[in-house]
Amino acid sequence: MVKAGIIGSTGYAGQELVRILLQHPEAEIVWYGSKSYIDKRYSEVFGNMFQIVDDTCMGENIEELADKADVIFTATPQGLCSSLVSEDILKKTKIIDLSADFRIKDIEKYEKWYGIRHQSPSFVKEAVYGLCEINRKDIKDARLIANPGCFPTCTVLSIYPMAKEGLIDMDTVITDAKSGVSGAGRGAKTANLYCEVNESIKPYGVTVHRHTPEIEDQLSYASGRDVLINFTPHLVPMNRGILATSYARLKEKLSYSEVKAVYDKYYKNEYFVRVLDENVFPETRWVEGSNFTDVNFKIDERTGRIIMMGAIDNVVKGAAGQAVQNMNIMFGLEENTGLKIVPMFP
Amino acid sequence: MVKAGIIGSTGYAGQELVRILLQHPEAEIVWYGSKSYIDKRYSEVFGNMFQIVDDTCMGENIEELADKADVIFTATPQGLCSSLVSEDILKKTKIIDLSADFRIKDIEKYEKWYGIRHQSPSFVKEAVYGLCEINRKDIKDARLIANPGCFPTCTVLSIYPMAKEGLIDMDTVITDAKSGVSGAGRGAKTANLYCEVNESIKPYGVTVHRHTPEIEDQLSYASGRDVLINFTPHLVPMNRGILATSYARLKEKLSYSEVKAVYDKYYKNEYFVRVLDENVFPETRWVEGSNFTDVNFKIDERTGRIIMMGAIDNVVKGAAGQAVQNMNIMFGLEENTGLKIVPMFP
Amino acid sequence: MVKAGIIGSTGYAGQELVRILLQHPEAEIVWYGSKSYIDKRYSEVFGNMFQIVDDTCMGENIEELADKADVIFTATPQGLCSSLVSEDILKKTKIIDLSADFRIKDIEKYEKWYGIRHQSPSFVKEAVYGLCEINRKDIKDARLIANPGCFPTCTVLSIYPMAKEGLIDMDTVITDAKSGVSGAGRGAKTANLYCEVNESIKPYGVTVHRHTPEIEDQLSYASGRDVLINFTPHLVPMNRGILATSYARLKEKLSYSEVKAVYDKYYKNEYFVRVLDENVFPETRWVEGSNFTDVNFKIDERTGRIIMMGAIDNVVKGAAGQAVQNMNIMFGLEENTGLKIVPMFP
Amino acid sequence: MVKAGIIGSTGYAGQELVRILLQHPEAEIVWYGSKSYIDKRYSEVFGNMFQIVDDTCMGENIEELADKADVIFTATPQGLCSSLVSEDILKKTKIIDLSADFRIKDIEKYEKWYGIRHQSPSFVKEAVYGLCEINRKDIKDARLIANPGCFPTCTVLSIYPMAKEGLIDMDTVITDAKSGVSGAGRGAKTANLYCEVNESIKPYGVTVHRHTPEIEDQLSYASGRDVLINFTPHLVPMNRGILATSYARLKEKLSYSEVKAVYDKYYKNEYFVRVLDENVFPETRWVEGSNFTDVNFKIDERTGRIIMMGAIDNVVKGAAGQAVQNMNIMFGLEENTGLKIVPMFP
Repeated sequence: MVKAGIIGSTGYAGQELVRILLQHPEAEIVWYGSKSYIDKRYSEVFGNMFQIVDDTCMGENIEELADKADVIFTATPQGLCSSLVSEDILKKTKIIDLSADFRIKDIEKYEKWYGIRHQSPSFVKEAVYGLCEINRKDIKDARLIANPGCFPTCTVLSIYPMAKEGLIDMDTVITDAKSGVSGAGRGAKTANLYCEVNESIKPYGVTVHRHTPEIEDQLSYASGRDVLINFTPHLVPMNRGILATSYARLKEKLSYSEVKAVYDKYYKNEYFVRVLDENVFPETRWVEGSNFTDVNFKIDERTGRIIMMGAIDNVVKGAAGQAVQNMNIMFGLEENTGLKIVPMFP
Repeated sequence: MVKAGIIGSTGYAGQELVRILLQHPEAEIVWYGSKSYIDKRYSEVFGNMFQIVDDTCMGENIEELADKADVIFTATPQGLCSSLVSEDILKKTKIIDLSADFRIKDIEKYEKWYGIRHQSPSFVKEAVYGLCEINRKDIKDARLIANPGCFPTCTVLSIYPMAKEGLIDMDTVITDAKSGVSGAGRGAKTANLYCEVNESIKPYGVTVHRHTPEIEDQLSYASGRDVLINFTPHLVPMNRGILATSYARLKEKLSYSEVKAVYDKYYKNEYFVRVLDENVFPETRWVEGSNFTDVNFKIDERTGRIIMMGAIDNVVKGAAGQAVQNMNIMFGLEENTGLKIVPMFP
Repeated sequence: MVKAGIIGSTGYAGQELVRILLQHPEAEIVWYGSKSYIDKRYSEVFGNMFQIVDDTCMGENIEELADKADVIFTATPQGLCSSLVSEDILKKTKIIDLSADFRIKDIEKYEKWYGIRHQSPSFVKEAVYGLCEINRKDIKDARLIANPGCFPTCTVLSIYPMAKEGLIDMDTVITDAKSGVSGAGRGAKTANLYCEVNESIKPYGVTVHRHTPEIEDQLSYASGRDVLINFTPHLVPMNRGILATSYARLKEKLSYSEVKAVYDKYYKNEYFVRVLDENVFPETRWVEGSNFTDVNFKIDERTGRIIMMGAIDNVVKGAAGQAVQNMNIMFGLEENTGLKIVPMFP
Repeated sequence: MVKAGIIGSTGYAGQELVRILLQHPEAEIVWYGSKSYIDKRYSEVFGNMFQIVDDTCMGENIEELADKADVIFTATPQGLCSSLVSEDILKKTKIIDLSADFRIKDIEKYEKWYGIRHQSPSFVKEAVYGLCEINRKDIKDARLIANPGCFPTCTVLSIYPMAKEGLIDMDTVITDAKSGVSGAGRGAKTANLYCEVNESIKPYGVTVHRHTPEIEDQLSYASGRDVLINFTPHLVPMNRGILATSYARLKEKLSYSEVKAVYDKYYKNEYFVRVLDENVFPETRWVEGSNFTDVNFKIDERTGRIIMMGAIDNVVKGAAGQAVQNMNIMFGLEENTGLKIVPMFP
């Protein structure tokens, strides 16, 4: 039984960790951390947990937590995890950080895009980027996981095979992404009120969204060269879901079957990546509540481009689900333990 | 392993049966019946099932199905199950009917409210009304279950303790209910198009909704006298969820603790009924995707009335979940096997 | 040209006042008041006003405003208008208060339900309750209007004819109401975030909602006796709209035509109240963006009750639209000037 | 007073024409055509029109209509208008066709993308593409207007200045568009049911959407060369609104002010095109219900691309509103007569 502690259990990602871990046969939650709700019963914050979770929210005492937990999930704002981590802590427990603190290897780049100073640059090198389908081997032995961002997970998984095989011109990659509102977090901001978001769609963070360098890094590793992309997220009036639509120029003319073979090469044996049938495109509703990434592509012979699409549930594969997938790998469990959730529709 | 066949597996309730049974450790689906999609792969109808269900939709050959299945779920329009059932079938298999065919004991009443002729009145008496928390004992040995309607489940469970204990004037019961759109089914009707339903709320079936006699019957059994109520459902722009707000005159002055004790008497040991804390009222979001019924009440001393509220997920406790709960009881399984689903939020 | 000043122009009701007054042929806005956005361009707060409104938000200097404006709308929290009003102000200008400060004639009752001390009880008597269809004559000469609450407007208009004619037992009145989220205001609260409200319905303020005494007062005036009701509002995931479903016992058996004649007696000549055809029930979508109140009723012979239903757009007839209707009456304009807005669908 | 007849008045675009024309001071509707609802009162189909429109739906007798109407709007499926138009009709009346029949000058291209045979190729040349801001002069004297598609209107207006001035590489244009559900029409299809669309986003018509050649044609005219683009529309769970996000490589390095000057050159005096302030991006909520097109751009120096964004209300500027704008131009009225609608929020 893996003993798990959660710092930041009262945000949307933290609460989803709770939902998933409660139904996980090999894990047990030993700490419901929450800065804002200390001493409040967890089920008063989230009514779905009534008569399921009896615990009370605890503070962020990471030393005490490190003694109790085999793994700590930090589902917290940027900067917190890097201020808490230490050699002492990592000797006692593993950390899966859902924030961006350890995702970018280049500290300067991190500090520029995030506008904050990194608190523990020495651990950045050690941290493993927890995109399970790509870095499975390194994750196995890691003490510190940088759990990928929601947009990068969806975008990278849908482009990866083409980038890795060198089939697209990496100078032409454009990702236009769409996200549900839970991605904006549970903080009380006017911009995220029901009436502000409902019945509208808008782009945001145009050219400056913080997930841009994370996607670029991963595509650079995959393609073996420095990649700059355009990434434009949009806010969609729905609770959950991310859809990423990416465009790139094909280096040479390829048929549907040739490209299909490439995707199958990487994903055929992946439980959580589903390459859809020809002309069936990802829709967020079909992955809701699950850890699946649905991907597919369409070749446009007229323009010589390929459109690569991916859909995930941002709170599951884009956050809590992938974090548990990482935990499973790190603790030698079947990778899909507790994650064989059938997507809920409608 | 219980072998289950589903007739009507491509409606919303049928698909939810699939979702639940796939994650049920003691059940296996042997038949995906669907009149409209015969020979089509099930996962082409519901993309969430891609790479999870490989089966193809079958017709409604109940004889063949009866040989294969230990239990048949009929998630079909009124009139179908009653036209299929027979002594032969029931000798081979059990039936859990999600339609209204066997819910009303008085055939004439059924025919009046539903406007159709009953196809097999001889089985009405045998059928057990599958409101598990109330009729658990009879369900155990039943061959034919009338799975309750969504509104009746929610309404009856929230009023039952007060009716049973004779604490409210049954002549004053008014239920004002609100339902998500999945309750309207998956048929292609203009009235259920996105743009017709979104950003609006409306009453429907005012004074004539078919769930009225079903609720009245159950409240009559509970209170030991003939009950007539006002029942007004409303359509709410959301996928899932039913909220029932019921009003009645208290026969005598009662305190919060006195009424709380009454609710606890009936529900304290019920896994699926959660009596909320004082002044916390049911919200459909807290039961979404789960088999829970959240109930609570509020006494209004000014008017001498009690307001009794309940919330369920209409496709789970209001349909597929309760059907599986019935199956569990009928097959001697733990009642919550495969149903300990944590509600999904947001 | 009526010169109008708005205090609280950056809330939802205030912004709707702006939308309506901008399209009003006989009015002109001279003051965009806003405590939170002083010195900010109004169109930066509300992007719909870009290149339409060039003004900058001003503070709450009511003396200066009284010199400039023929009428002041206060679309502000309870307690503000009553702290600003004075004989000096009312000698210079008229006030239409969209808050609850002057709606309840009984100061003690106001202070009890609202939990605050009334700042200017001396003006309560003078203030006219601005439910135009009922109090048109008094509104004409008023200096100070208490613009009705959204729920009271919808509820009272749908019950009024039956109460006034003495046809229902006022001891049995129950109103179950449903509101869109704009009614909760534009303040940044977790409870009103998109993900908290979307895909859910909940009751709130059960037995204690502040609109209860306001409705009771008006029904008491109409029926000539003291009335206590049950009033339960619910929050619906939609931007705009209120639906009120009210129940009462008919004192005597009445036919559809008899009751229809009663409604027609009061509303036949009312531009803004539409009595729908038989068996057509109010839906909020059909009044969206307009000042209409759609009402209808259904007699239930089985229970001897009548169900009375009404739908309004809460920000228009429930707030800004009715405020402008009051302004029209006070300034001798045609009552529907600038308000002949065709509801927008979908 | 312009006498207007509408063929197809019971679709979403047709109904919006009614809403706009009813509030137009110089127009009058003389014919509510509807194939599906002949002899039904218009207000029974659309409850918002109750007590506003007393007319009954008529058939498609275009000869009779041509005698009565100064202008006929055809808000009908592709192929209908081209089967009705004739020299006789055009001698008596003007036609504004909201379908695609006359938008594409190359008949072969039209037939290929739409998969139907063109019924009256001889009128294609005469027809004027009614994108008012671009073709105002030709519209003035036209008898037959091809009212632009919703996506083309939004996309072309947001790219036009850059294309016309030759500042972007037309080989690199990619448009990723998002549309509300009303764009899918009012036909009863399972795919457009509330529960199918709600809480999801999906791409559709990937590489094959019929608006692609229409956009390409207009961008070709603007840039003076043949243009092929990638165009991917997505379905967003909201009633109204289109957002188009377009990407292209800048031919040379340009500053914000230089590009701003280019947009201002074309749109400074346009009432219906609003070039937003720096770093304020279009959101569909700010144009809802109005005829505005909000546009803006962002230069990405890292990639050398420009992101050009536009937002419209698809039923107004994308259909009915632009049709009325065309009518105004054709009949010598002020172009914004009846169209100075302030966007409705929330």
